[in-house]
Amino acid sequence: MGPHGDGDIEKVESESRRRPISTVVFVIAMQAEAQPLVNKFGLSETSDSPLGKGLPWVLYHGLHKDLRIYVVCPGKDAASGIDSVGTVPASLITFASIQALQPDILINAGTCGAFKVKGANIGDVFLVSDVVFHDRRIPIPMFDLYGVGLRQAFSTPNLLKELNLKIGRLSTGDSLDMSTQDESLIIANDATLKDMEGAAVAYVAELLKVPVIFLKAVTDLIDGDKPTAEEFLQNLAVVTSALEETATKVINFIHGKTLSDL
Amino acid sequence: MGPHGDGDIEKVESESRRRPISTVVFVIAMQAEAQPLVNKFGLSETSDSPLGKGLPWVLYHGLHKDLRIYVVCPGKDAASGIDSVGTVPASLITFASIQALQPDILINAGTCGAFKVKGANIGDVFLVSDVVFHDRRIPIPMFDLYGVGLRQAFSTPNLLKELNLKIGRLSTGDSLDMSTQDESLIIANDATLKDMEGAAVAYVAELLKVPVIFLKAVTDLIDGDKPTAEEFLQNLAVVTSALEETATKVINFIHGKTLSDL
Repeated sequence: MGPHGDGDIEKVESESRRRPISTVVFVIAMQAEAQPLVNKFGLSETSDSPLGKGLPWVLYHGLHKDLRIYVVCPGKDAASGIDSVGTVPASLITFASIQALQPDILINAGTCGAFKVKGANIGDVFLVSDVVFHDRRIPIPMFDLYGVGLRQAFSTPNLLKELNLKIGRLSTGDSLDMSTQDESLIIANDATLKDMEGAAVAYVAELLKVPVIFLKAVTDLIDGDKPTAEEFLQNLAVVTSALEETATKVINFIHGKTLSDL
Repeated sequence: MGPHGDGDIEKVESESRRRPISTVVFVIAMQAEAQPLVNKFGLSETSDSPLGKGLPWVLYHGLHKDLRIYVVCPGKDAASGIDSVGTVPASLITFASIQALQPDILINAGTCGAFKVKGANIGDVFLVSDVVFHDRRIPIPMFDLYGVGLRQAFSTPNLLKELNLKIGRLSTGDSLDMSTQDESLIIANDATLKDMEGAAVAYVAELLKVPVIFLKAVTDLIDGDKPTAEEFLQNLAVVTSALEETATKVINFIHGKTLSDL
């Protein structure tokens, strides 16, 4: 293998895995999901954002010991005034954050729905094993696989064990509710969790070759007896607090470690 | 109004509307949709792409008289080897193209499904009046409107008249097929056309304040009697040729004109 072969990329990647992690970017869809973490680490809103001018995106930054922590949110939609949830804004902020901030690892943190039949309870914070989409049905050979978009989260066996987290597959779609077609695909893909951003964040992370993990806190039980929207709003505050607690433990675990240590 | 008020932005925007259009970027999801246009204008693939390194995205560039023309495609998905269709890749290439190429206007061109009950035939090329999403159901007040994401295309009354195009509303979703929920929303939103990228391209164009128009060529009749995937593949070659013809007329019409002339 010559010095200009593919081995170069592998060498750089392998070297970066042996250096302590210095920069973490949290990708978080809703302000209510981000705020507890921002408060906990005393992060400041970045006024002259390197992500671009005139955008609704909100970037927070701060230091935890010598670990640089960023939290990026898609911010308020201009027309409706609500948080810009879903795959398109999440993919854009993930892309722009990676380009501008060069993180060692991404953490997509947020709330989700989950199946109690798969062992989930309200307030559980899951680490995600892998992600799929459930609303990209393209019934043409190979396009069907592309639509499902199965991707592995970065493997963190020590983190999983140390924090004693539940683990499961996450399925992503742009609707808060679940159509019969969505449900069939979620069940066919054997997913435990359902959110509106994860698989899109994973797609961009893979495109730009940055490791990504997912912390997803359960606000509603899909196979429970309450309507999703009502249960989601009812549990949002308590569950985002649980999410902050786990995210704090994750940050403390990551500090001083290399990617390979996770 | 002082020199540093909001009037500055309006002044710049209004001035750019009085300058002849110098740069056009076509956002096109599939290679098969892009190739006839690339061939027609003798565009070259950009080897050292300003959109970023190591990405599957394909950028073509060329000059038509003194009009700079770019065509950007999301390229092949690494895992499945097929074109990276859908809202997430389309939003990423739109974002990166606007940042790197600073176009005066975007044109999202591609194939679509359409309703014959709304006057569409196979091979028709529509200009889009406005766009919505049909697979972002979020049944919480204001979130529901955000999900639908109604946005106007840039208004081009002279282009519409000169080229004698059909016009209609476009509804976007990440599936090639149409679930019963998708269908209800498409009908409720009174859409004529159905694609997999348009509303996401419109979202990014609005975010970065760039005018966008849409040329959508009908490959399949949603309310026809043939299965969508089969009809799509059968008509793809002929319809992309019709799309290239219309896109050529649009480029010839745009050349030498300002945004206000369109």
